[in-house]
Amino acid sequence: MHPDEFRRHAHAAVDWMADYLRDVGALPITPAVSPGDIRRQIPETPPLDAEPFDALLDDFRQVIVPGMTHWNHPGWFAYFPCNNSPPSILAEMLTATLGAQGMSWATSPAATELEQVVMDWLRQMLALPPDFVGVIQDTASTATLVALLTARERATGGRSGAEGLAAADAPLAVYASREAHSSVDKGVKLAGYGLDRLRHIDTDERYAMRPDALAAALERDRAAGIRPACVVATVGTTSSTAIDPLRPIAELCRRAGVWLHVDAAYAGAAAIVPELRTLFDGMETADSIVFNPHKWLLTNFDCTAYFVRDPSALLSTFQATPEYLRTAYDADVVNYRDWGIQLGRRFRALKLWFVIRSYGVEGLRALVRRHVALAQELAGWIAADPEYELLAPAPFGLVCFRWRPPGRSEQELDALNARLLAAVNAGGERFLTHTRLGGTYTIRLVVGQRETGREHVRAAWDAVREAAGGLQASR
Amino acid sequence: MHPDEFRRHAHAAVDWMADYLRDVGALPITPAVSPGDIRRQIPETPPLDAEPFDALLDDFRQVIVPGMTHWNHPGWFAYFPCNNSPPSILAEMLTATLGAQGMSWATSPAATELEQVVMDWLRQMLALPPDFVGVIQDTASTATLVALLTARERATGGRSGAEGLAAADAPLAVYASREAHSSVDKGVKLAGYGLDRLRHIDTDERYAMRPDALAAALERDRAAGIRPACVVATVGTTSSTAIDPLRPIAELCRRAGVWLHVDAAYAGAAAIVPELRTLFDGMETADSIVFNPHKWLLTNFDCTAYFVRDPSALLSTFQATPEYLRTAYDADVVNYRDWGIQLGRRFRALKLWFVIRSYGVEGLRALVRRHVALAQELAGWIAADPEYELLAPAPFGLVCFRWRPPGRSEQELDALNARLLAAVNAGGERFLTHTRLGGTYTIRLVVGQRETGREHVRAAWDAVREAAGGLQASR
Repeated sequence: MHPDEFRRHAHAAVDWMADYLRDVGALPITPAVSPGDIRRQIPETPPLDAEPFDALLDDFRQVIVPGMTHWNHPGWFAYFPCNNSPPSILAEMLTATLGAQGMSWATSPAATELEQVVMDWLRQMLALPPDFVGVIQDTASTATLVALLTARERATGGRSGAEGLAAADAPLAVYASREAHSSVDKGVKLAGYGLDRLRHIDTDERYAMRPDALAAALERDRAAGIRPACVVATVGTTSSTAIDPLRPIAELCRRAGVWLHVDAAYAGAAAIVPELRTLFDGMETADSIVFNPHKWLLTNFDCTAYFVRDPSALLSTFQATPEYLRTAYDADVVNYRDWGIQLGRRFRALKLWFVIRSYGVEGLRALVRRHVALAQELAGWIAADPEYELLAPAPFGLVCFRWRPPGRSEQELDALNARLLAAVNAGGERFLTHTRLGGTYTIRLVVGQRETGREHVRAAWDAVREAAGGLQASR
Repeated sequence: MHPDEFRRHAHAAVDWMADYLRDVGALPITPAVSPGDIRRQIPETPPLDAEPFDALLDDFRQVIVPGMTHWNHPGWFAYFPCNNSPPSILAEMLTATLGAQGMSWATSPAATELEQVVMDWLRQMLALPPDFVGVIQDTASTATLVALLTARERATGGRSGAEGLAAADAPLAVYASREAHSSVDKGVKLAGYGLDRLRHIDTDERYAMRPDALAAALERDRAAGIRPACVVATVGTTSSTAIDPLRPIAELCRRAGVWLHVDAAYAGAAAIVPELRTLFDGMETADSIVFNPHKWLLTNFDCTAYFVRDPSALLSTFQATPEYLRTAYDADVVNYRDWGIQLGRRFRALKLWFVIRSYGVEGLRALVRRHVALAQELAGWIAADPEYELLAPAPFGLVCFRWRPPGRSEQELDALNARLLAAVNAGGERFLTHTRLGGTYTIRLVVGQRETGREHVRAAWDAVREAAGGLQASR
């Protein structure tokens, strides 16, 4: 495709893109498709000859878009948000055009240096002390694995890289609350600790880690000759945005010489709002912190911010410099390939730079404030309705609740709420998901999509009650 | 930013993008910057208030672009290529706009099903048997780590996930040639085997793994009570595109019950060309294969193709299904999050679909054929010049050579070729890199950028000889 043809097709694509951004709220948020429906519309064998771009764009519009779940729909209340934004999309366009590889400083100096700058901007926005340095990882799963690998290396005195897990003079253990994200379980498996060595620490009535239970687990392991290697504390758990008490946890880690990793994948964005920073009290005592600008800070996935206090621990875990990657600058620069698992790296700093500058720190704060206020307003409506029940505190944008008409057993309530959720989602105007809290089937409604306003939250609440009415009538 | 403002800015961005694609060959391929030069042009603190997009685009043009290394410049002969292409960029624009998350089938059905289709297209293009299934990973480093983790799980009878490396009834070992990529070393460290348990197998005079040396290493370990877990064989090593003999290696793996992972990260693209498939003889016997469409198949980074014969081995290593990720479809669909490390996944299948359809299989074959023919022509020129020496066979697009004026010691030749490389690169019209082969400083020239033609290769060869002349005159 000649650059002039590209120009023509790209202008056509832009018009579709702008229309999509304007109209996405009118699309069904989840597609009405069954497994296999998309696949059978696409030939089973690749074309031998070139096809014109217009045919591709048509197929994209007619086959792909109707099969997509629209994560950037203002009725998005599911999982956690995965926001993009116009300036972030613009940056992705430019990044894709450069097609550069940021594995080393020398392979794209501006990519490395802009990453250093914007990660320090983020550090300042989170009010972290200046001894934290940042690097962009792809996902929080990867960042948590990076933390677990770094902690493993430290707990073996820098020997696990060379000698494997056998280097440990004692078996190693990891600690996280029962409500920690599944990526902690996965990371503990992959890093070779073994899931049997992950201690799921009990939580309190707010689903936050109990420091006394952590202290007891640490003590139990030490007495049994097991060496505590890493504690993962969460600010904003996935099921309920519970907040593990960082300060007492950090004190236990400090005394035990254990790596403290803070998983604030979703909630971290809220730390840019001064009046919400008390929820992160003690975060500055962590060894590593992960949070995802691609969730709540309007930056296209993937963009995970990973902060560490001691980058030399990353280097000793991840550095590899074969002859063919050596450059004349290695002694004087940061080569981010040595700060994580992957060698190849996209130029992800550009979208973060565009987002922070396009909205300004105050603009991003206003967005978070708006979502938190809407979640609290919704929580108020739920609390005021005797047929509904809040199932957890709502400090950020997530509200956990269930319908609780009188005279039903717990089992019946679980089944009823699953049906309620399906009914609410069936309309295609909004999308909510579920979890279980203390065994109880729980509806999760997250206010966090860029365009979600009071009208969408109000309509969602109305839809819940209407769907409940429908279920009641159909008994 | 309102969708209409986005429309205006995106059209402006597209004009820059099309100009860049047209004019990139006229830019200095590597920037004339020193460490810190970019950073000091950017404010140290983030802006509180929003800035207009025009200012961002200006800064992008004036601060960022002059600090970039231009990987998509036709003078790109460095490392391996990292190609993009107009249809791939168009797909990235659409993907960024959707901003969807493909962690589960239900979170974007079209993303999962298109990935299934295009990965099967790729399988057919590589002439792999139908029992291989594919998944897109981010990088070859990650895919090789995935293979090493899967092999670890298999070698421990499915127990290493739960019990860690302690589950192994014998220490585990991994085998790869001395010329294998650094990501194998890194993966062996991260997966917990320990680098001491990576056997670097001797290579022959063509830098390919010696099957007799592998057999001896396997036997030595077995006799010592060490269990062989994984062999990584490479088709197209990074230093010299050496080809490990897959068929005898596979036979050794089969007999020993060892996982065979084939790293064809760069060269795999050549397997789409029927007359080059003999170079991949035996690849169909592997347990897993990695190759990067983002290198030589015109698909924007990141897009790594990972093929396995037994996806259940992936599931048993990577699957994690907490309540909040359960969907009604899980029993009937592929949830790609369980096929690798990350939970979150971008919609990367779209760009691969656009590329294969825009060029057609024949168009992509023509590209690879053209690059291989140009590399062979260059190798011929070098072989015909008595002052130069080819240092390895050139079966794909990479030519390894050095200048060898008479009367110099090996040490002098190493220093001289390092100066020659620096002189060739100094002009900013082309970019070559180096390696060491058998200890010898080696200049690497890879023909593989989308727009690289005979004139660029000829000009590079002229520039090498001219720079050598300059060095000779300045003695």
